[in-house]
Amino acid sequence: MLRSCTAGLRSVWALRGRREGAPWLSTDLQPARTLFSTEKAIHKDWALPNPSWSKDLKLLFDQFMKKCEDGSWERLPSYKHRSTQKSEEFKTYFLDPKLVKEEGLSQAQLFTRGFEDGLGFEYVIFSNNDEKRTVCLFQGGPHLQGLPGFLHGGATATMIDVALGSCATIPGGAVMTANLNINFKRPVPLCSVVVINSQLDKLEGRKLFLSCNVRSVDEKTLYSEATGLFIKLDPKKNST
Amino acid sequence: MLRSCTAGLRSVWALRGRREGAPWLSTDLQPARTLFSTEKAIHKDWALPNPSWSKDLKLLFDQFMKKCEDGSWERLPSYKHRSTQKSEEFKTYFLDPKLVKEEGLSQAQLFTRGFEDGLGFEYVIFSNNDEKRTVCLFQGGPHLQGLPGFLHGGATATMIDVALGSCATIPGGAVMTANLNINFKRPVPLCSVVVINSQLDKLEGRKLFLSCNVRSVDEKTLYSEATGLFIKLDPKKNST
Repeated sequence: MLRSCTAGLRSVWALRGRREGAPWLSTDLQPARTLFSTEKAIHKDWALPNPSWSKDLKLLFDQFMKKCEDGSWERLPSYKHRSTQKSEEFKTYFLDPKLVKEEGLSQAQLFTRGFEDGLGFEYVIFSNNDEKRTVCLFQGGPHLQGLPGFLHGGATATMIDVALGSCATIPGGAVMTANLNINFKRPVPLCSVVVINSQLDKLEGRKLFLSCNVRSVDEKTLYSEATGLFIKLDPKKNST
Repeated sequence: MLRSCTAGLRSVWALRGRREGAPWLSTDLQPARTLFSTEKAIHKDWALPNPSWSKDLKLLFDQFMKKCEDGSWERLPSYKHRSTQKSEEFKTYFLDPKLVKEEGLSQAQLFTRGFEDGLGFEYVIFSNNDEKRTVCLFQGGPHLQGLPGFLHGGATATMIDVALGSCATIPGGAVMTANLNINFKRPVPLCSVVVINSQLDKLEGRKLFLSCNVRSVDEKTLYSEATGLFIKLDPKKNST
């Protein structure tokens, strides 16, 4: 039963519509059509350059786009969740629908894509499926401030979760995070670009063990290291 | 030297102006006047009820305010950082000032207090200094969504960091987070209220070991558990 299978887990999850060729990013948080619905919806892909992107971010983006040309890497598109499109199938699959509150949901926005361009989380994730790793290019905007001039640790933790989650989806299907263990080494300057390298270390049944590091663009500064445990959900199971 | 003392740490830190009686919350991220400046500034205290607070949050707030009457508990005020007021003293004390980028700082906002009332992080922290513990009452608004209808795990991680950080400051002085280890048990319904109980477990030199849990208002649902390692900074040291 899903309820027992989701106990010990949490709400960050990931889906990939692998059959469509364009994988669903862990933070898109949108029902995966291939699994749950055939409804089509046109969304803006947020994992593309906008005028707020710094020279560093654009340069790295271009470099990885070149790596995508031979098919070894792929860019993961990223969509906001549309709160008005609530999939009962989806809720039933993942969680006890009775838990979901309707109050306030009309204003709901995906946390990591809810800021105006450049003010919050600007990021794109590239995936290498053969090597079971992802690279997240992340520019933390001025609305993510902690210590004056530096990124809030919660924003770093959020992106670590997103990056690890995207990597956990490589084996396919839906995953949920069960544990995050983060060592913070140095504060990240606000508005700078960091690179989050994530990899799948071990797969034991439905448990996926991952790790990542957060480094400066020149790789000389290690800002954070983290491990994550994700649980693969079984699409054949549901809560009913 | 500060640079060596901050290596292995990160940007979330905490200050308390204990001598003034009104402690500085870990997320205020504003130079503590008692330590660094005598400049006075009037700020809005964000740790007070606003119309977006739910009945649950207001009720708990009132209960804790009553506990404050005999002095055993105190409410921690919470201020936004004013990005235009940059303290060179502060930067020199904490970090290598060369790391701080000026670009984009004019738009800087404290991550956890940068949302409009009710849309993001609504929280208040109460502290029991004798028992070395804090209680954080947190209502996660619709702009913190992860899974549709639920709080993003990054938002939960952020509040865990803030809550643990506030507790770590009880021994006084400034602290920085070195590690966060979070077990996510169940997803938190969006717009619901949770209670984060934090406690100081051990103090070894400058290392502070803390733990917390995130529960529903009726305490029946355990959403998350976490431990944190914080490092107390030595105000006599600086980077020069």
